[in-house]
Amino acid sequence: MSELASSSMHGAPPLGGLLSGPPAIVAAGVDVFSDALRAQGAQVHDVDWRPPGFGDPADLAALALDPRRAAANRAAVERLLAAGSQLVDVRPASEVLDLADRMLLHAGPPLEWSNASGPMRGALVGACLFEGWAASVEEAQRILAAGEVRLDPCHHHRTVGPMAGVTSPSMWMWCLSDPVHGGQAFCNLNEGLGKVLRMGAFDHEVQERLRWMRDVLGPVLSAAVRGSLDAGNDPIDVKAILAQMLQMGDEGHNRNRAGSLMALRELSPLIVAVDAPSSDIAAVLKFAGGNEHFFLNLGMPTAKLALDGARDVPGSTMLTVMSRNGTEFGIQTAGTGDRWFTGPAQTPVGLFLGDYGPDDANPDIGDSAIMETYGVGGFSMAAAPAIVRFVGGTVPDALATTERMYQLTLAENPAMAIPILGFRGSPTGIDVLKVARTGWLPQINTGMAGRIAGTGQVGAGLVQPPQECFEQALVALAEAARSA
Amino acid sequence: MSELASSSMHGAPPLGGLLSGPPAIVAAGVDVFSDALRAQGAQVHDVDWRPPGFGDPADLAALALDPRRAAANRAAVERLLAAGSQLVDVRPASEVLDLADRMLLHAGPPLEWSNASGPMRGALVGACLFEGWAASVEEAQRILAAGEVRLDPCHHHRTVGPMAGVTSPSMWMWCLSDPVHGGQAFCNLNEGLGKVLRMGAFDHEVQERLRWMRDVLGPVLSAAVRGSLDAGNDPIDVKAILAQMLQMGDEGHNRNRAGSLMALRELSPLIVAVDAPSSDIAAVLKFAGGNEHFFLNLGMPTAKLALDGARDVPGSTMLTVMSRNGTEFGIQTAGTGDRWFTGPAQTPVGLFLGDYGPDDANPDIGDSAIMETYGVGGFSMAAAPAIVRFVGGTVPDALATTERMYQLTLAENPAMAIPILGFRGSPTGIDVLKVARTGWLPQINTGMAGRIAGTGQVGAGLVQPPQECFEQALVALAEAARSA
Repeated sequence: MSELASSSMHGAPPLGGLLSGPPAIVAAGVDVFSDALRAQGAQVHDVDWRPPGFGDPADLAALALDPRRAAANRAAVERLLAAGSQLVDVRPASEVLDLADRMLLHAGPPLEWSNASGPMRGALVGACLFEGWAASVEEAQRILAAGEVRLDPCHHHRTVGPMAGVTSPSMWMWCLSDPVHGGQAFCNLNEGLGKVLRMGAFDHEVQERLRWMRDVLGPVLSAAVRGSLDAGNDPIDVKAILAQMLQMGDEGHNRNRAGSLMALRELSPLIVAVDAPSSDIAAVLKFAGGNEHFFLNLGMPTAKLALDGARDVPGSTMLTVMSRNGTEFGIQTAGTGDRWFTGPAQTPVGLFLGDYGPDDANPDIGDSAIMETYGVGGFSMAAAPAIVRFVGGTVPDALATTERMYQLTLAENPAMAIPILGFRGSPTGIDVLKVARTGWLPQINTGMAGRIAGTGQVGAGLVQPPQECFEQALVALAEAARSA
Repeated sequence: MSELASSSMHGAPPLGGLLSGPPAIVAAGVDVFSDALRAQGAQVHDVDWRPPGFGDPADLAALALDPRRAAANRAAVERLLAAGSQLVDVRPASEVLDLADRMLLHAGPPLEWSNASGPMRGALVGACLFEGWAASVEEAQRILAAGEVRLDPCHHHRTVGPMAGVTSPSMWMWCLSDPVHGGQAFCNLNEGLGKVLRMGAFDHEVQERLRWMRDVLGPVLSAAVRGSLDAGNDPIDVKAILAQMLQMGDEGHNRNRAGSLMALRELSPLIVAVDAPSSDIAAVLKFAGGNEHFFLNLGMPTAKLALDGARDVPGSTMLTVMSRNGTEFGIQTAGTGDRWFTGPAQTPVGLFLGDYGPDDANPDIGDSAIMETYGVGGFSMAAAPAIVRFVGGTVPDALATTERMYQLTLAENPAMAIPILGFRGSPTGIDVLKVARTGWLPQINTGMAGRIAGTGQVGAGLVQPPQECFEQALVALAEAARSA
């Protein structure tokens, strides 16, 4: 019994007791806070408080009682876990994607120019300039506003794109293949950090880099990958690199340092063997070596392959997509096919570059939340404690976040082991029903684009989906369960 | 009060009470064990037991009362912390080391052929064959036994060598420089794992690799490093790579994956620019990219530079060397200059490759314990939880080891931050007095060589120095304190 409590019981003035006695501590929420106090010798009383769950009780009951659910979720998550990812080609988007004339792909759920955010507009304008569809920013804005350029989500084309995710016909794509389920997935090449198209910048510097990527980087990488396969070598196992990253302090979304180095180690000997001017070879090695997010555009289609492998499993409440277009956050589930459930995108909270601050940040944007959908990124922050220096928070927060995500997921991915948790597999396969029951939302690590078109990156931070997405998905899944 | 205790007090048969009541748990030692039980709801009574300290009370008192000690240790550890490490050249040992005719350097304290262990003999034989001083194994053994080849510790030549550490005139050396104190340190090039000279293997495969390293690898690396410096580029900052490794799951002794990748990223563009046959360039990139310990031979001289910077500080009880020759373990301190304090090398406990087992392991060998002397390696295992899959033990052991090493050290190295400990600096500057007072010995991660000459590596594990080294150092430091 604390001194405070005993002095009160003996009739001492309560306020005097408050000041003279030791503090009485009541902690609600994650254990790390009360554990830290306990480690300092304080007596802490834990309250097992949790945010309230959500959803119509009838809907929750319909899903709970759906006889298909357990087997369907097991099937979906097993397909997710089994999927592999191999780098099989590097090709222009025009050759490998099913693009209509004058079509641009973008991140997130479907979007019109009229409700596109600043960085999305900036990236769309930049892509029109890059493709030569407009000679000026004004002309690009005009043709986009007039609907003369068709917009379509990357996810509708087996493609994922970080941040704005704008993908145009002349961009070169990593082409990945799942040797287990036979799927394919695509992602363009990472431009680096700062003033880049995917962050909404579109000026001369951005255009020049995009042209170099089209004329030098893409052809060299393509020749490197094709040359190696033609010589009878095995394709690069991208899933194995992602797995090894978690042993090396990366979480695969906002920290891709080890992954980028490993990809470079695999690609360098192939690049050196390409018949191209040595200045081009050196420039490619320097560009790839100088970009700590080089691997992100290989990790994302690896996650996409696995989640596409788990699509269309009637009765499954597992997520197959989380994605944001800068205006809305959208999710899809294995039990509801291609249908989007959307809500307003939240603005991340985190750390800012240079003089930028919270007012400069655009709402959440990018297909990169496919990493969390796959169980890495924010879900595996415990593997990457150093990331708190980039996205904010503390190391105990990072550990607690991963611990919490196990409550939302169907499985632990043995291929994605987290050393500090005794090699426990990452929390994988987000279950809409578990999200509704706990009231906890998935945790996403993300970059932050400037909300004004043309700005580029302003920071990185943490964000969650809006609850609305899950509420809608829950209703749709319950309807499907009742009519099954 | 537990049910067990209360039932005993009421006269129930004690053995019946033992079986029917909950267990009473008393835990001695590191907190992680009792914390784990507590997390499962058990009531645990901690006993603050520690191993007994050692040393003559008069010697301990002489050191405790030495008025020079505090300032001397501060000076020594500040010099250690301030030291930098830049890669300034790659040259043959014959050009940069002060070697007598027919001299071989070896790891650890001074050694004669007559008391050399199997792997040390194997490496010495292999070096004689490589240098052409003998045409057969038998001839090499004969000239070594006859004293026709002079043996000298690497540490006597500003050099460090992993495992047997045998360094011969024709081997190429990484040449590192400390821009703060102006020191220099050297280490030969890493051969990779398995059947390699430093593990005591000397057969045809080993000789062929050593010749390729002499004729191709060394000249290409030398031209790469010199070419870059001649072009006006800054030297590669090796200390910065070591610091970044701890953010990426390496501890810098037995786990060098991220460091090797980062070194490769820095060196690749320089290697590609070398005017050499493209097949040689490709072979160098492949060799370096395929060796996860490529960085170790850059990390060791980085630690050596810092510890040489802290040499010869009268009154300091800080270690400047921990090193093993396969027969003896030797230490030096900042307060006692070049004097060695030695004891019998222990045999590591750990994990074995293939069919090898504990009986195949040679006692502790190598200068690589310079990493622990610098505060990384075993001292920073908390940064590298995945290493337990290589050296044995559990993740909580790794965390507890680093926590324990803070009790033996003078400072936390802010440049070597450990993310999982909230970016706490690594425990740095081992204090002989603290070792004696706690009775705890430094923890070293190490490779294990086969005890039969010619075997090569048999595993990796954990080992501690013999207490004798510290007992002798304590006596010598106390004598110096009394006569100061």
